[in-house]
Amino acid sequence: VGMSSCPDKPETALRSDALRNRRALLRAARELFAGNIDVPMYEIARLAGVGQATLYRHFPDRSALAGAIAEEILDELEVFAADHPEGADLFFPLLQCFIRLASQSGGLIAAVREGSGAESELKYLNDRLFALFACPLREAKASGVVRPDLELEDVLRTVNMVHGALDAVEVDLERRRADVSRALDLIINGIAG
Amino acid sequence: VGMSSCPDKPETALRSDALRNRRALLRAARELFAGNIDVPMYEIARLAGVGQATLYRHFPDRSALAGAIAEEILDELEVFAADHPEGADLFFPLLQCFIRLASQSGGLIAAVREGSGAESELKYLNDRLFALFACPLREAKASGVVRPDLELEDVLRTVNMVHGALDAVEVDLERRRADVSRALDLIINGIAG
Repeated sequence: VGMSSCPDKPETALRSDALRNRRALLRAARELFAGNIDVPMYEIARLAGVGQATLYRHFPDRSALAGAIAEEILDELEVFAADHPEGADLFFPLLQCFIRLASQSGGLIAAVREGSGAESELKYLNDRLFALFACPLREAKASGVVRPDLELEDVLRTVNMVHGALDAVEVDLERRRADVSRALDLIINGIAG
Repeated sequence: VGMSSCPDKPETALRSDALRNRRALLRAARELFAGNIDVPMYEIARLAGVGQATLYRHFPDRSALAGAIAEEILDELEVFAADHPEGADLFFPLLQCFIRLASQSGGLIAAVREGSGAESELKYLNDRLFALFACPLREAKASGVVRPDLELEDVLRTVNMVHGALDAVEVDLERRRADVSRALDLIINGIAG
């Protein structure tokens, strides 16, 4: 309450400015990474409308940026899960949501892996993902909507498989989306008739 | 007949020597590429037991080597198809054979793509693959063992998806094989229960 009565307090203004920059950087990075994870850092700063110094203050390297995007994707997945009724019906929509979000930034995990603190960051991301899917997967198995031997590792595998189906040189986002849909459909429904 | 009566004729000896070197180089490259497509060219020459000059005479660059391996895989697939009865029962064994062979050299197509004559080589490989799968796929669809909307492009997609499921940093071939099996099983049978 005290904060909101004093919106122009310098410290608060600085913090909200930093948050705004951070959000703009992440949005720009996600947009550019969708086409190519190797896009230069200065292009991300330019699209975000901030200086390179600001970019590097928030994200010292590409690995830090990739990790932040991965965490943001998990945030969005958690919101998605919270917005949907629990039970056996959650697994497939949650998996589809995960794959669509993840496939917009192919190579994200490879970029995280190049960082100095990669091991603990990857473990953190993995733990959060598995925690998110554990209950929906258990309930989907219990009610028979997924094969009984499906494991949490398969959730990750599915994302990697869809990513593998994307042509590395294809930049047309519409065609990439079509490729994601087809690969997802093949995995979910299988090839057998 | 004239040839076999004169096995030490210099020209023939040279040709068989060149063939032996070529085969040794391809065998070495396939063995080393199985772990990592970026293995240095001199290691391939060393494992094959030939000099680097010989390597470069046969394969001027990594792209040429990757293309030759891809062609060899197609040769083996054609032999596999010829050894098996035609009809609806050929599609799945042929697909499995293709995926196992292709997944032993991940990144092969990316390596071919880097060459100067990439476009025509990729078209050649693609045409041969589609010619090989056209009849088995048609018969598998006709008899209902695969979903009716499956297309030749999906055969390629499947291989890319299995490749995507392989952890780029995993060097244990036994674990890679297990990953290939699981990914293949997920695509063929799907996730839905």
